[in-house]
Amino acid sequence: MGTIHIQRRKEGIMMKIGVIGGGSIGLLFSHYLSAKHSLTLLARRKDQAFQINEKGITLIHDGTSTTICNISATVMSDALSSQDIIIIAVKQYNLSTLLPILNSIPPEIPLIFLQNGLAHIEQIDRLNQKTIIVGTVEHGCQKITDATVKHNGFGKTLLAPYRGDIEHIRWLISDFKDTFPFLIHGDWKEVLFRKLIINAVINPLTSILKVENGGLIENPYYLHLMMSILEELLPLVPMLNEEKMKADILKICENTKENRSSMLKDIDAGRKTEIDAILGYAIELGKKRQHSMPICNVMYAMVKGKEADQGES
Amino acid sequence: MGTIHIQRRKEGIMMKIGVIGGGSIGLLFSHYLSAKHSLTLLARRKDQAFQINEKGITLIHDGTSTTICNISATVMSDALSSQDIIIIAVKQYNLSTLLPILNSIPPEIPLIFLQNGLAHIEQIDRLNQKTIIVGTVEHGCQKITDATVKHNGFGKTLLAPYRGDIEHIRWLISDFKDTFPFLIHGDWKEVLFRKLIINAVINPLTSILKVENGGLIENPYYLHLMMSILEELLPLVPMLNEEKMKADILKICENTKENRSSMLKDIDAGRKTEIDAILGYAIELGKKRQHSMPICNVMYAMVKGKEADQGES
Repeated sequence: MGTIHIQRRKEGIMMKIGVIGGGSIGLLFSHYLSAKHSLTLLARRKDQAFQINEKGITLIHDGTSTTICNISATVMSDALSSQDIIIIAVKQYNLSTLLPILNSIPPEIPLIFLQNGLAHIEQIDRLNQKTIIVGTVEHGCQKITDATVKHNGFGKTLLAPYRGDIEHIRWLISDFKDTFPFLIHGDWKEVLFRKLIINAVINPLTSILKVENGGLIENPYYLHLMMSILEELLPLVPMLNEEKMKADILKICENTKENRSSMLKDIDAGRKTEIDAILGYAIELGKKRQHSMPICNVMYAMVKGKEADQGES
Repeated sequence: MGTIHIQRRKEGIMMKIGVIGGGSIGLLFSHYLSAKHSLTLLARRKDQAFQINEKGITLIHDGTSTTICNISATVMSDALSSQDIIIIAVKQYNLSTLLPILNSIPPEIPLIFLQNGLAHIEQIDRLNQKTIIVGTVEHGCQKITDATVKHNGFGKTLLAPYRGDIEHIRWLISDFKDTFPFLIHGDWKEVLFRKLIINAVINPLTSILKVENGGLIENPYYLHLMMSILEELLPLVPMLNEEKMKADILKICENTKENRSSMLKDIDAGRKTEIDAILGYAIELGKKRQHSMPICNVMYAMVKGKEADQGES
């Protein structure tokens, strides 16, 4: 594995980007974005911040590891108020503790939320910030150590304005169009719901059946189950085209056939999953609309049961 | 582990009992019944017959192993026509190849069928035998080698006349009342449906979730799933008391909490399961009665999918 050390490029206007969250997504974004701007990673644990300050963030991609050293890492602090933009890359279930802190920073600083599901929308709606962007990440990545992230699948990040004007963060999109692409979409609901449905169909099934994403299309029984779940979910999202969603999901399983879904990885590692933000949210929505979802209820109970079993051991 | 060798007791009238099938149930019945009668075990494989003729059948129970040597074992042969009674202990999915052979033996020989589910009823209905008994086995047992069976849970065998008179096999019941109890029930449908429901609720769930029977009552999500499956199945069996079935299933899970269900063992060993005879049969019944069973359909697809995956590896 070759190792390349590069310094942040000193061209154009340096913006200050804050990234909250030292998980795989936080590390991935910090690594790429720090190539052109001044980056501060805000971690929950002091020892992770220490590791990153000492070593930088190493990215492993296609067998090559690249380390960027000029990343400042810290735990939650005043550093937040001096950023030009803040990207929030914590899991949905860790967001609630963060909201009071976000609300205390100047309302002019745009925030970008990258959580799965839509359960966080109600929470971020109460924030004071003038510009709030929501996004979905299509990169495949895995945290290896506190300061190393593996970039398994190169994708894009879809951003949509939830409130305010996306023009405030246009510099972010143009600066990385060749190296770490962002795409803008006008309708945040469509962006988040599309990802919700994809996650709701693939993640619980793979984690219950313990198969890689490709297993869902290679096994006719599993394929049938996946399509049955999708059929149950589609009435919740009339804005999405049914045939396109089916084709997209089959293609995603094909393109990521050797990948293990994040939920399968969480279950196998004994971690909490995002089941409540994903399938839990969809089921609640179904209840409100009196739409019966028996298969989704089974999937939900199985994943919650697996989580509960892990808590015991 | 202590070892006791005992010879068949030479008292009373010796009857000739044929047991077809060298799986765990076949070995268990052969071992116990050979203590008082002349037993012939009919195996599919010559080498298993050879092993049993050489070594007898060893039973392991409560840490003690007991070997009975006077058991004659053979592959399918004329031996069938000279039995006083024949017990058929093969899996349901292996029964069809056996039926022409059974039909060729004298119609006076009573047959006892011990298969799970009810899928075999249609098949045995076409036989010529005057007396046909069906039964369910509540013993827990596990085949260790071709000539050794472990008796994990001591239970009883429930027998009910499907055709003819149970009086023809009364000697079997009275001879073993203290050592290997048989109980007679008047209604074969009730006997088989009760076992079908118990198996349909416990077996697929434990094999999908990879938990022991106790796991289904210790985990609140799994308990809820189990009760939801039972709710779907109960309309198919109006002859069974709903509250009693619920209580029975909870008690069975409690009493066998450290046991792994036969279906879980089959899945883990890469063997074919009895899913079609159990849940497959119930689902077909539901279709005929236009009773919707979405959760059972999910369980069925998951077990069939696991079977299909194993075929590949």
